[in-house]
Amino acid sequence: MDSQQQFLKKSEEAKDLFLPHLSTDPVVFGFDRSELKVLLLQMTYRKQWLLPGGYVKKDEDLDDAAKRVLKERAGVSDIYLEEFAVFGKNKRSEFYFEDFDDSLWQKQRFVSIGYYALYNPDNAVLVVDELSEKCEWISLSQLNEIELAMDHREIIEKALLTLRERITYKPIGYNLLPEKFTLSELQKLYETILGKELNRGNFYRKIKNLGILRKLNEQRRGGAHKSPDLYSFDEENYKKALENGLSNW
Amino acid sequence: MDSQQQFLKKSEEAKDLFLPHLSTDPVVFGFDRSELKVLLLQMTYRKQWLLPGGYVKKDEDLDDAAKRVLKERAGVSDIYLEEFAVFGKNKRSEFYFEDFDDSLWQKQRFVSIGYYALYNPDNAVLVVDELSEKCEWISLSQLNEIELAMDHREIIEKALLTLRERITYKPIGYNLLPEKFTLSELQKLYETILGKELNRGNFYRKIKNLGILRKLNEQRRGGAHKSPDLYSFDEENYKKALENGLSNW
Repeated sequence: MDSQQQFLKKSEEAKDLFLPHLSTDPVVFGFDRSELKVLLLQMTYRKQWLLPGGYVKKDEDLDDAAKRVLKERAGVSDIYLEEFAVFGKNKRSEFYFEDFDDSLWQKQRFVSIGYYALYNPDNAVLVVDELSEKCEWISLSQLNEIELAMDHREIIEKALLTLRERITYKPIGYNLLPEKFTLSELQKLYETILGKELNRGNFYRKIKNLGILRKLNEQRRGGAHKSPDLYSFDEENYKKALENGLSNW
Repeated sequence: MDSQQQFLKKSEEAKDLFLPHLSTDPVVFGFDRSELKVLLLQMTYRKQWLLPGGYVKKDEDLDDAAKRVLKERAGVSDIYLEEFAVFGKNKRSEFYFEDFDDSLWQKQRFVSIGYYALYNPDNAVLVVDELSEKCEWISLSQLNEIELAMDHREIIEKALLTLRERITYKPIGYNLLPEKFTLSELQKLYETILGKELNRGNFYRKIKNLGILRKLNEQRRGGAHKSPDLYSFDEENYKKALENGLSNW
């Protein structure tokens, strides 16, 4: 079957299986120790890149739908997805299937619920689904070079903004760093997410004041410089900070 | 017409007018200088209290729907509504119309998009819509004494949590305080939102450091104590802080 036939077949099945007008789009950010990346598909149809999103079953909780869709479309499971925004402009998605007749189920208006996650790319073997040619981690710095479908660029930008806001009141790093890390590796993560350089002394002082780090009796060996101390997260305090937030007030 | 007949009439009209499965629920917080309140309706049907929510027209942007619904159901307009969370559990709303036949349009599954706003209760004359008996500001401290419909208690709690998180990285107060206010009035607002007392010296130092206040050459007269200085927001800096956030990093 070619990709148009695939759509037509899926379209017939979709009507019975899914709620109309509702979709989910997960923005999964990965950090490979130097860059922030986002998980994207390139669909066979139109060759544009897009988020690994999909529809909601008629009796399925929305959060479960987002997880199922991500697993089906990219092979990524065991992930904490957090809903961050809704994309509900009229005509945001209808144009994507312009080559098809208006009776195509997927061509109706869709309001998409955006989820985001932080994920260590090392933890997944990506799987390409039947509608796609590629499933890859794309660096944020390369996003301008590819064609993104519908409003998916806006969805990714809003997710990044949410992540930057969140970093001011929630700890970040647990799913993105190895179990043992140096303060300079943690600083690099913060700098990558915030998109700006941070003063080393200030960063070290503030991050230590949060009480979420445990200094280990170990150093990272092998570098040209003085061997830096290794740290890990204090799981209990990290969890508490996740739940209660890091208030300024 | 009684309330059941009203629903049946609305149900017929709704099918042509609105998207199925999607609703919006605005959580409007008001501050009356001592307490945080939330805008609620008591519907004639079932006598439970609920948020002034409603459905999305087939070709209407989601954000516009939220504003229109709030105006139609409570008379509140000219308000900045911010989407904050989605409530998408299966069976979250279906039970509400249990007295009706399953063919009632409103009885289908609905995923609701939550919006929240900060609003000065003095700015609105509330209007009771045709399906409701009351439309009122209810103090958060009184919420435990009333019966709320569906998952609307959860929606309000999540909105409050979002507001508390937001206060750590965005300025708050512009729509809630009079044009000229004392630092102690601003502190009271922060304490009310955060649900805890703040140290006066720390609060004054931190809030002044944000650079969003302008000290006026005026004092509040008439109290028993020393006349306190009046402040207003520096509109330009306040707007900048709204856009860029107040980063810890």
